[in-house]
Amino acid sequence: MTLVITTYDWVPDFARGFVRDLRIRWACEEAGLPYQIETTPVREKSPQHFARQPFGQIPILRDGEIELFESGAILLYLGEDHDILMPRERKARTQTQQWLIAALNSLEPVVMSYVVAKLFDKDENAANLARPRLHDRLKQLVPVIEGRDFIAADRFTIADILMTDIIRGVESFGELGDYPALRAYAEPILARPAFRRAHAAQLEHFAEPA
Amino acid sequence: MTLVITTYDWVPDFARGFVRDLRIRWACEEAGLPYQIETTPVREKSPQHFARQPFGQIPILRDGEIELFESGAILLYLGEDHDILMPRERKARTQTQQWLIAALNSLEPVVMSYVVAKLFDKDENAANLARPRLHDRLKQLVPVIEGRDFIAADRFTIADILMTDIIRGVESFGELGDYPALRAYAEPILARPAFRRAHAAQLEHFAEPA
Repeated sequence: MTLVITTYDWVPDFARGFVRDLRIRWACEEAGLPYQIETTPVREKSPQHFARQPFGQIPILRDGEIELFESGAILLYLGEDHDILMPRERKARTQTQQWLIAALNSLEPVVMSYVVAKLFDKDENAANLARPRLHDRLKQLVPVIEGRDFIAADRFTIADILMTDIIRGVESFGELGDYPALRAYAEPILARPAFRRAHAAQLEHFAEPA
Repeated sequence: MTLVITTYDWVPDFARGFVRDLRIRWACEEAGLPYQIETTPVREKSPQHFARQPFGQIPILRDGEIELFESGAILLYLGEDHDILMPRERKARTQTQQWLIAALNSLEPVVMSYVVAKLFDKDENAANLARPRLHDRLKQLVPVIEGRDFIAADRFTIADILMTDIIRGVESFGELGDYPALRAYAEPILARPAFRRAHAAQLEHFAEPA
């Protein structure tokens, strides 16, 4: 059964290459899983969309009888079936899940708080409060990542998909300059052919008129 | 091997009953797992703490040879071994993981953004921007939860631990008034003996001088 990934029919220029269906495309590319893309309107979100995803977000994955949302949950789901995404061995799997959750609950929220204040709300006071919180987290990651090729389990996992996707977001708005160790970790992972294929496919998708 | 949960040695009054070790205590109580508590200083966090938990957070769980952090990851870890926390059947487990991740990545961040702006930063402008984002999410949860006893898999799971712990946080700062459906969902779950024991144990822990 071919996997079906739902994403938006359109996003503004600045978001292209950063929409979260990328994380799922990337995992599929790593595991050699064929997938199809379906779209749902972003400018007028439909009742059908909210019925499938209560927050009106994407991605949504359909795999035969099973449908689920939240990019982190979809990565866990695919990881259960594919060793290349998440190791079977208990300690390595536990580390993978720990860093997957840390990316989603301890790193991404401080990144988003800064992005929302600075870029969406253009609230300079809030951005000035959010920025040191973001940098505290980035600084705390340095000793973890320095000299490591991967964040968990000494090998590529779904935790690296999330961590590097978040780090390249930080890079995109110019806040990664002081962290060569984070860039040294992310760059080889983002050079993987699976990421490049996934990224190119998302850019191509959003280049087409909705 | 008895599980060991690390939490802080002290927190201010307003945080007592809301520290995240509660989620792990609760899961242990549900599964009948004995646990010990160890503490780490909160007022001057130690290098030993940062070596175990790069962000200086708690809880940390030790289970023999395995040690991990992030309350969501610890719940997943315990859930793998205990059906009462997470069902084995694929579709039910997938739903559980989906809502666990949704709680951590789509609900808790909007709650925390509001809390940080309103209560920590006392930044009224940022709080006024964060508040409707929080209420959008709460409103979106109503049709999901209305008439359901549990958020996933038609039974109690670790996803309910996270969802109801976050909802009672919202209640504690007075923003849950307009959502009787959310309260109707959370109240019976928070009346479970396992939650009550865990909550009482946390209050007792923080009542002792550090």
